[in-house]
Amino acid sequence: MTWVPGAEGSPFGVHNLPYGVFRQSPQGPARIGVRVGDALLDLHGAESAGLVLAGGALQAETLNPFLALGRPQWSAVRTRITELLTDAAHRAATEPLLRDLSDIEMVMPFAVGDYVDFYSSEEHASNVGRIFRPDEPPLLPNWKHLPIGYHGRGGTVVVSGTPVIRPHGQRATPDGPVFGPSTRLDIEAEVGFVVGVPSTLGEPIPTDRFADHVFGVVLVNDWSARDLQAWEYRPLGPFLAKSFATSVSPWVVPLDALADAWLPAPEQDPPVLPYLRDIPHLGLDLRLEVDWNGTVVSRPPFAGMYWTPAQQLAHLTVNGAAVRTGDLFASGTISGPRRDETGSFLELTWGGGEPVALGDGAKRTFLEDGDTVTISATAPGPDGVTVGLGIVRGTIVPGSAPLR
Amino acid sequence: MTWVPGAEGSPFGVHNLPYGVFRQSPQGPARIGVRVGDALLDLHGAESAGLVLAGGALQAETLNPFLALGRPQWSAVRTRITELLTDAAHRAATEPLLRDLSDIEMVMPFAVGDYVDFYSSEEHASNVGRIFRPDEPPLLPNWKHLPIGYHGRGGTVVVSGTPVIRPHGQRATPDGPVFGPSTRLDIEAEVGFVVGVPSTLGEPIPTDRFADHVFGVVLVNDWSARDLQAWEYRPLGPFLAKSFATSVSPWVVPLDALADAWLPAPEQDPPVLPYLRDIPHLGLDLRLEVDWNGTVVSRPPFAGMYWTPAQQLAHLTVNGAAVRTGDLFASGTISGPRRDETGSFLELTWGGGEPVALGDGAKRTFLEDGDTVTISATAPGPDGVTVGLGIVRGTIVPGSAPLR
Repeated sequence: MTWVPGAEGSPFGVHNLPYGVFRQSPQGPARIGVRVGDALLDLHGAESAGLVLAGGALQAETLNPFLALGRPQWSAVRTRITELLTDAAHRAATEPLLRDLSDIEMVMPFAVGDYVDFYSSEEHASNVGRIFRPDEPPLLPNWKHLPIGYHGRGGTVVVSGTPVIRPHGQRATPDGPVFGPSTRLDIEAEVGFVVGVPSTLGEPIPTDRFADHVFGVVLVNDWSARDLQAWEYRPLGPFLAKSFATSVSPWVVPLDALADAWLPAPEQDPPVLPYLRDIPHLGLDLRLEVDWNGTVVSRPPFAGMYWTPAQQLAHLTVNGAAVRTGDLFASGTISGPRRDETGSFLELTWGGGEPVALGDGAKRTFLEDGDTVTISATAPGPDGVTVGLGIVRGTIVPGSAPLR
Repeated sequence: MTWVPGAEGSPFGVHNLPYGVFRQSPQGPARIGVRVGDALLDLHGAESAGLVLAGGALQAETLNPFLALGRPQWSAVRTRITELLTDAAHRAATEPLLRDLSDIEMVMPFAVGDYVDFYSSEEHASNVGRIFRPDEPPLLPNWKHLPIGYHGRGGTVVVSGTPVIRPHGQRATPDGPVFGPSTRLDIEAEVGFVVGVPSTLGEPIPTDRFADHVFGVVLVNDWSARDLQAWEYRPLGPFLAKSFATSVSPWVVPLDALADAWLPAPEQDPPVLPYLRDIPHLGLDLRLEVDWNGTVVSRPPFAGMYWTPAQQLAHLTVNGAAVRTGDLFASGTISGPRRDETGSFLELTWGGGEPVALGDGAKRTFLEDGDTVTISATAPGPDGVTVGLGIVRGTIVPGSAPLR
C-alpha cells in the first residue's frame, strides 16, 4: 500500500515506478524522477536529501548515469523508492518531493546512443511482403533464420509530444521522381528496449544475459514516409523515410515492473541456430492501443512477436558489436493476425486502398496535417493489477520546403 | 615558414594542421592536439597557458566542444596556431608543448553521434551490381536521382590501430544458413565528413551551407563481411555485416586545409532535383592508397565520386533530420574506373574469383587473420605542397565464438 493519494491500484502504482526526466519550467534544469500514480517523485531532490543513494547518478540531466549502474544498483534504488512511498514513516520527508504531473513537462529521458529497429512481427513482415511484392512469397528466405534489423537515426529520437514535422523527399512517379511533402505518412507502433550496462567490443551478449544489460522498456512510434521509403530503399534499406523522427514515451518502465508479463513466445520453426536459442523462450504480454484523432483503430499484441527481445540483443551483438548505455533497440512494427491488430496504417488500410473511418466521420488512409496519434499500452502486473506504459503521442505539422 | 624542425614541406606542415586527441600514457587523460610535421602541439596545454583561446573547448577529452564552436572560431584558432608555429617570437613559449608522435598514442578524436554511410561512387555501385545482380542493369533506377545512403553503427567507430575482430554471423549455403566466422571479410576505402555545428529538426541544410556545418575530413575503412551481408541485407539493408567495426584516421583535417583540393565533380545526367543542385558542383581531389600487408593494391580517386559531399549533407537533412556535433557521414566505397582503383576487395578480386598477388608471394581474395590494411591519402595543397590525411590502419584478429 502506498500512501500517495490516488496511486493505489493505478497502472502506475508502486509495482510500476517508471523513470523519466522532467522540467518544472521551460527553461529550468532537467531532473530525474519516478512516476507514482499521477505524481512524480523528484529523485534529484530525494538523492540530494539523502533519501535515496545512487552515487550521484540521480543528479544528472539524463537517466544515462543511472542506467549504467547495473542491475544490483537498479534493484537497490527500486527497493528504497518503494520503502519511501509505502512506509508512512517516510511520508513527511518524501511528500514535499512529489510533483503533480500536470505541473511539469516531461523531456527525453535518456541520451540515445545507437538506435536499432528490428522487424520481428511475422504478421507485419508478411503483410508488407503481400502489399509490396504480391508475386513472391510474403516472407523473404532469411526472415525465420535471423531477426532482421537495421540502424535508425539516434539523433532524431524525440520524446512524446514533440510535433512531427511532415518530411519532404523524393517519391517515384511514372514520369520519374518528384520532390515534395510525403503523401503517405505512416506510424509504426513498437516497443523499445533501453540498454543500461554497456558491453565490450568482440564479446557477444548471449540470450541469458539479456537482463544484465537491458534496463527497461519504452513505447515507440517510428514514423515512416512510405512514398520516400519505396523509392529509396534499394539496396541499402530505409533512410530518409524514417530518419526525420522517432517518438518514444517519456517513461522507462523497468524490467522489474514487468516480471509478471513474460509468457511463452511463438514456437519457432525452422529451429534457430544455437546462438539464438533462448531457454525459456519468452515474450512480453504488452497490449498496445493505437488512437487516431480520438478513435482507437488498432490493438497490436506484443505477445505474438516471432523474435524475442533476448534474441534481438543476442543477434545484434553476435558479430562482436558493442552496446553502450542509452542504446535503444525497437521491436519493429507490432501486428497481430487481425486487421484491427496491425501496427501501421499501411497495413490497416491495406496499402492505402481501404480507408479507415474515424469517430468524427472522417476517413483516412495516411496521416494528414493536424492528425494526432497516441499509442498506449498495458501489461499484466502482480495481484491482478495492470502495469501502464507511458503514452507516446505526436501531432503532424506541415514541414517547410528547403531553401532551394 | 614554420620553426618546427622537419615540418616545412611535409604533408603535415602548417598548411594542414589536423586535429586529434592523444594520451601520453595508456592510463593518462585524453588531450586535444594539432599535428605539425611529426610532432603534435598540445592544445590543452596551449590553452591553459593562454597561448590559444577557445573558451575552454580545448580542455575537453574529445574534439566535440571545439567542433561545435563554428567556422569563425575554427578560423580564429587556426590563425592563432599558425602564428605560434611560424613566428619565431612564440617559439620559446610554444616549443615545450610539442610532443613527438612516437611518444604518444592517438585515440578516437571525437565522440560519434550518428554515422551515415553513402554509396556515391558510380563505379563501385555498378561493380557491385554486376557482381551480385549480373542479369540486371548494374545501377538501380534510383541511383542517379539521389545519393543512396543508410545509417551505420556510431558506437563501433574506432580509431586507426584498433584491432579488427573477425565477426561471426550467418551466411547462406545450399543447405541453409550456417553460423561461423566471416569467410569474406573485406574493406571499404572511404572519406568521412565530420559535422561540427548542429542543425535544427525540420530545417534542411542547403548545399551552399555545407561549410557552415562540416568541420573536416577523416579517412574511413568501413570493414564489411560480404557473406553476412549477402544473407541479411534484404529488405532493410546491411546490419551485422558492417556494425562490428568502422575505423577512422586519428586526424581530422579541417576543410580550411583543403581549399586547394576542390575541383569540378563529374557532370550529373539526368539533372538532379533542385534541392540537390550545388553550384559550383565540386568534389575533392583526394588520392587514396590501399596497402595490404605492405603491397599497394589500389589507388582509389575520390575526385571521381558522382555525388558531392554538399549534396550528401543536403540530402541527409532534406527530410528535416537534424545533425549533431560529432555526426559522421562517409562517402561510400571509392572506386575509379580501373581495377587497381577499386576501394573494396570484392571489386579488386571480382567477387573473390580473381585473387590478387601481394608482394611477399601470398595470394588473397578476402582478408585472413593477421592481415593488415593501411589506407592513406593526399590532396593538393597551396604552392605545390601536398596535404596529408592521417592513415587508417587495422589488423584482423580472430573473433571468439559466442558463449552458446
